[in-house]
Amino acid sequence: MNDKFSNPWQTVSRRVAYENAWIRVRHDEVIRPDGLPGIYGVVHYRNLAIGVLPIDDEGFTYLVGQYRYTLDVYSWEIPEGGCPEGEEPLEAARRELLEETGLVAAEWKELGTAHLSNSVSDEAAIYYLATNLTQHEAEPEGTEKLELMRVPFAEALQMVREGKITDALSVMAIQHYALL
Amino acid sequence: MNDKFSNPWQTVSRRVAYENAWIRVRHDEVIRPDGLPGIYGVVHYRNLAIGVLPIDDEGFTYLVGQYRYTLDVYSWEIPEGGCPEGEEPLEAARRELLEETGLVAAEWKELGTAHLSNSVSDEAAIYYLATNLTQHEAEPEGTEKLELMRVPFAEALQMVREGKITDALSVMAIQHYALL
Repeated sequence: MNDKFSNPWQTVSRRVAYENAWIRVRHDEVIRPDGLPGIYGVVHYRNLAIGVLPIDDEGFTYLVGQYRYTLDVYSWEIPEGGCPEGEEPLEAARRELLEETGLVAAEWKELGTAHLSNSVSDEAAIYYLATNLTQHEAEPEGTEKLELMRVPFAEALQMVREGKITDALSVMAIQHYALL
Repeated sequence: MNDKFSNPWQTVSRRVAYENAWIRVRHDEVIRPDGLPGIYGVVHYRNLAIGVLPIDDEGFTYLVGQYRYTLDVYSWEIPEGGCPEGEEPLEAARRELLEETGLVAAEWKELGTAHLSNSVSDEAAIYYLATNLTQHEAEPEGTEKLELMRVPFAEALQMVREGKITDALSVMAIQHYALL
């Protein structure tokens, strides 16, 4: 088959260049769409990215602040985490929301799915709206040192507009809810 | 300084695990925020990601379709590309828009900036609104085999809602414009 929507790339060889518990980096030798030889480095993510936008009965949301090692900056985001293969995404969402904020939601709604960086990685994300909230004890992981901030949803949207929230999954979820 | 917004990670050692023309993967030995030893694999992106939302005088936008090697799926997206260090992001945006669609825009507006996948990578993105458009000849790169689709903006937003556009940079730009 050679229609215009079919795969125009050919993989000639494939090797694992690096891996850890979260990613596996593959180095492929390829034939490019124009027929010339090339290479493609693909970062495979072992976990599905999970984002949760909690909205309480007063219309407030909850932002999690943490230092992002990759960027060397402090970042305010919606509660997020990883869903390993074999775990249900919604279960991972419940777990991450509880771990990071102590919140339990009685109502869940899937807002959307996305691919975060598809020129280099296969990372996929799913994000939820969590409502009908009750407060319990947060249980952060050892790799996390988190701050929690409760703000009116309009303020979170304003933080996106002003570039104070730049995490893509947070931006997508907040914009999506603002459009509902 | 040890306030709650400062870096709680310590880097013990650092080595390059893999690199190509687009990414460099670093393997760091670290002391985690909880004081325990750990590792961190960081994917450094050599290019800034650029997204362009073109809107013509009739309120139509232009989507670019291509096969994404990383995901093994066909993907409809706004015009996108990479801005290497040393190039002005707006110049890269003009170049990518012309290469992929043949469009030249007389008016440009920065819509937002984002970090696409900050748990693993340092990839940053900037996205623009391009208006006052004139049609010229497209000049695709050899690594690209592109289709072009002109659709009413409302249809592009609907494609986001229905999960037919999943590329994060496209989702952010389309939702941002819908909120203006």
